[in-house]
Formats: sequence, structure tokens, C-alpha cells
Amino acid sequence: MEGLFITAIDLIGTFAFAISGIRLSSGKNIDWFGAYIIGLVTATGGGTIRDLFLGVTPFWMLDGKYFLTTGVALLAALLFKDRILRLGSALFLFDAIGLGLFTVVGISKSLEAQLPFWVAIVMGAVTGSVGGLIRDVLLNEVPLLLRRNIYALACVMGGLVYYLCTQLHFSTSVTELTAALVVILVRIVAEKFNIHLPVMSPVKQEDKDQPDRI
Amino acid sequence: MEGLFITAIDLIGTFAFAISGIRLSSGKNIDWFGAYIIGLVTATGGGTIRDLFLGVTPFWMLDGKYFLTTGVALLAALLFKDRILRLGSALFLFDAIGLGLFTVVGISKSLEAQLPFWVAIVMGAVTGSVGGLIRDVLLNEVPLLLRRNIYALACVMGGLVYYLCTQLHFSTSVTELTAALVVILVRIVAEKFNIHLPVMSPVKQEDKDQPDRI
Amino acid sequence: MEGLFITAIDLIGTFAFAISGIRLSSGKNIDWFGAYIIGLVTATGGGTIRDLFLGVTPFWMLDGKYFLTTGVALLAALLFKDRILRLGSALFLFDAIGLGLFTVVGISKSLEAQLPFWVAIVMGAVTGSVGGLIRDVLLNEVPLLLRRNIYALACVMGGLVYYLCTQLHFSTSVTELTAALVVILVRIVAEKFNIHLPVMSPVKQEDKDQPDRI
Repeated sequence: MEGLFITAIDLIGTFAFAISGIRLSSGKNIDWFGAYIIGLVTATGGGTIRDLFLGVTPFWMLDGKYFLTTGVALLAALLFKDRILRLGSALFLFDAIGLGLFTVVGISKSLEAQLPFWVAIVMGAVTGSVGGLIRDVLLNEVPLLLRRNIYALACVMGGLVYYLCTQLHFSTSVTELTAALVVILVRIVAEKFNIHLPVMSPVKQEDKDQPDRI
Repeated sequence: MEGLFITAIDLIGTFAFAISGIRLSSGKNIDWFGAYIIGLVTATGGGTIRDLFLGVTPFWMLDGKYFLTTGVALLAALLFKDRILRLGSALFLFDAIGLGLFTVVGISKSLEAQLPFWVAIVMGAVTGSVGGLIRDVLLNEVPLLLRRNIYALACVMGGLVYYLCTQLHFSTSVTELTAALVVILVRIVAEKFNIHLPVMSPVKQEDKDQPDRI
Repeated sequence: MEGLFITAIDLIGTFAFAISGIRLSSGKNIDWFGAYIIGLVTATGGGTIRDLFLGVTPFWMLDGKYFLTTGVALLAALLFKDRILRLGSALFLFDAIGLGLFTVVGISKSLEAQLPFWVAIVMGAVTGSVGGLIRDVLLNEVPLLLRRNIYALACVMGGLVYYLCTQLHFSTSVTELTAALVVILVRIVAEKFNIHLPVMSPVKQEDKDQPDRI
């Protein structure tokens, strides 16, 4: 029963991430297959990099459902284009849910591999946010992740709450659920109230032209 | 004899991919060593990512011939610049041959690693097309692979034909040759007749500015 | 004593690389956490790719000091912004020292893994220069590494000197120190006297539009 629930959330997260990638491919002279690839990279990129760091086989090589879900997302985007791409707030919610779940998956998988907790938190953030990073690089944009925005930071906060729950001896499922909820809420609240960290202010131009720009 | 043939094709593919990278470095304030690196990444990037996914040592670490071939390609580009860079259709043909061969190499290597067939097809496409993807990212362009163009899709078609041949119990060499030819022909025919998938049409601007752009 | 010295140099290199990333994040609408990530990627990206190639656990997963040092670098950049970011020549020197040390670390680690010498030299160059490459890709610029500039080439020269010293049966510490110094000196001299390889001259436009642009 619990496994079914996790699978459902996992697929919803994959679907939402894939849609976000496919959506950003619109109007850029990218064809259907290119959009599929962008969707796939958005949905699976973070977990793939995590698995390479952990030295294990990338998760999507063991189960075809991520490729299929991305295919369904492309089909949905093509069939119900106007409707699905206008589902702004619902998509945002899906994406936040995906972020929360993927973060928790990354943390749990790293703890199972006996890694220290701070590494697990890093892996959670990698799992949640690197897919979108690669997507932005492929689309030739400065990654949204880096701009003023609570995104990877929401993953880190979820990771800290995960740690806290573990110290308080909460059960695994309560811990995972709590941490995922924190990621989701931080993400939503920050977006709704436009909360973000300060940006790095510019250095004066004459300094920038120095030869120390390595 | 067969080994010699494969080595020859392998080096021709490497050479053509390297030339395509070096060529695109022209006129971008990139120096000779930078052009060499771009050529190298174009020729070896796909196989390297495949090997990281498979969890094996990157192929070029085991044999210096790929670095040497790229060096020869750079030398050729510098010595016979006007002639070699104007060899438009011959280079295109070389590149298509390289694409076909690299795809088949990727599939065979994955099947030897006991992976399911669909994963092997993905690995074939990764081997054939990711080098050009990284090249475009480094040159700060939206990857050609994503734009309207039958490229990665040709690899996938070759992979499906590979599967078909296996099901029909063809010998390994016939299977590999047939699959490589399919990739090459699909690529050439698509380019010649300007066949491509539809592009993703733009979403209306007001939708794009929604906060759901994650 | 020697271990302490190496740790100190290692941390100085990390700090300098982190500062170079953080500095380039200024004035690009990147927030503090984004600047931290850019600093981290600059300082650890090269060694991470090397470790993935070598098939070992990324070095930063085994020791938190690289993440901490990057945090200190961000703090320093925020607190002493005007002063630290204007420290042009000192930062350049730090960065050159980091480049020399990281190159030597990459070579030594690869030789310990029983790799052939030419692979070790490649790994040295990867360790020293790929962090800056990823930084530039994330900041959506053509990597400085590729432009006219003695950077990766300095790593290769250091690697050749490392080989020479080994052939002359120098002790490990003398070999490492000599190679690092060569990298540092080549880098500084090339920058000071504006020495660089020729750039790739442009191909005529009509050639570039050929279908061979794969």
C-alpha cells in the first residue's frame, strides 16, 4: 500500500518535471524528440548525477517507467497543449511535490549507502534540483537554480528537518513525509511571498577587467 | 580482418567527429588547444557518458588512439584548412558513418553488460549523439541535437533494427552492419529531403511569465 | 609536517577557486546560495569529474572541508567585498597555486590507480581546469579555458615535467613540487607577457551554412 503511494508520487513528480522541461522547449525551434529529451533530462538528471556520485547504476536503467512517464507527458503536452501548459499553479504544485519527494528519495538512498548525513543532504539537493539545472544549460540559459529563488535551499532545509526527525527517533515514514512537506511548503511560501536571498551585487567594471579573471 | 575493418571505421568516425568539433571552433576566439579539446569532447563525449552509466572505465583511458586521431584531425585542419573545411558533403558522410558505428558500438557494449534491450538502444543513442551535445554546450549554443533534425532519432531507429535482427537470429556482424547502415541512411535521407519532426510551437507569452516556470 | 603543508595549500587552492567562482557571480542576478554553488563547482568540479573517470568516490564526499572552505570564501566575499574582489593580482596568484597543486594531486591519484602516464597527465589537467569550465558553462559563457590563454596547457606542461622527474628518479615530493611550480610559472609568465597559442581563424560564411554542420 505504502509502495503504491510512493510509486504514484514518484510518477507525479516525474510527470511534473518532464512537463516543466517540455514547456520550456516551446517556441525555441526544438522538435518533438528534442522536447522529449529535455523532459527526460529534467526528470531524471538529478537522480542520475546522484547515482554516479554514489557509484551505483543510474535508477532509470533499472525501470522503464521514467521513460514511459516522460512519453506520456509529451503526449499530454501535444494533445492538450493549451490547457496543460496554462495549468500554471497546478504545475507549480506538482513540481514542488516532485521536488520534495525527489529530495527525500536522494537522502534515503544516500543513508542506505552508509554516507554521513551532510553528504545525504547534499545528495537530496542534487536529486531534486540538478535536473532543472541541466535543462537550463541545454536551453542555453543561466540556471534558474542560481538566480534569486528558494529552490536548492528548500531541499537543504528539508534535509535538515530529516536529520532532526532522525535524532528525535521518528519512524522512517514520518521522517520522510515531514521532510518532503517542509521542502514543498518552503518552496510554495517563498514563491508566494517572493522571499529570496539577496543577490550578489556587481563588482565595479574596472575590477572585472583585471587579469585575475581566471 | 574484421577487427581491422572495425578499427578503421572507428578511427574514421573519431576523425570525422573531431573535425566537426574543430570546424565549429573556427572564428570564435578559441585557440588551437581549445579547438583540440572541443574536437576531443565531440569524438569521445558520448562514449564517455555511456561508460560512466555502465560503471566501466571510459574507453579512451584504455587506448591512446582516440587522443592521437584527434591530434591528427587538428593537424589536418590547420594544414589543409581551406580544403578540409570545405569538404562539406564528404565530412557529412564521415560524420554519418561515425554516428552509425558509434551507435552500434554503444548497443553491443551494453548488451555484453547484460542490460535490457531498451537500455542498450538508449546507450547507442547516447554514444552517437552526446559528444555533439557537449560540444554545442561548450560553444554556448542550443544543441543541434534538440533542434529540428533527425539525429538522435536515427540512432533509435538503428537500435530498433538491431533488435529486429536479433529476433530474426541474424549473426552479430550482419546485425551490426545492418543497424549501422540504417542509422547512416536515415541520417542522410532526412538531411537530403529536409525531413524532420514538427517543432514545439510557442506558448503565449503571458503564460510563460507565470510563477510555474520552475 | 608535510601533510600539514599539503592541507594548507589544498585549502588555499580551494579558497582561491571558490573566490573566482563567487566573484564571477556578481552582478548577474545570482543570489548568495547560487554564488556558493558556483564557488563550490569551481573548486570541486575538476576533482569530481576525475574521480568519476577513475571510478572512485568523489573526494568531497569523504571530507567536509571543501564545503566549509567554500562557505568561508562566500563569507569573506560578502564581508570584505570591496577589498577581496579588488585583490586582483593576489587572487591570480592563489588561483595559479591552486591550479598547480590540483594538477599534481590529479596526477598522483591517477598513478596510484596504476594508470598509464599519459592518462595521469590528462587527469591532472582535468582536475586543474574542469571546475572553471563548468563554472563558465553555468554562467552561460564560452569557457575561458577554450579561449586564447595558457591554462589547460600549463597543466599538461606540468604533467610532462612530472614524467621527466619520475624518469630521473627524483623523490616523490621533489617531483610533485617541481611539477606544481612549472604549472604555476607557465601560467604566470603566459599571463604577464600575454603569450598564447594562435586562435582558429574563421571559415568563410558560405561554408558554414553547409549541411555538414552536424
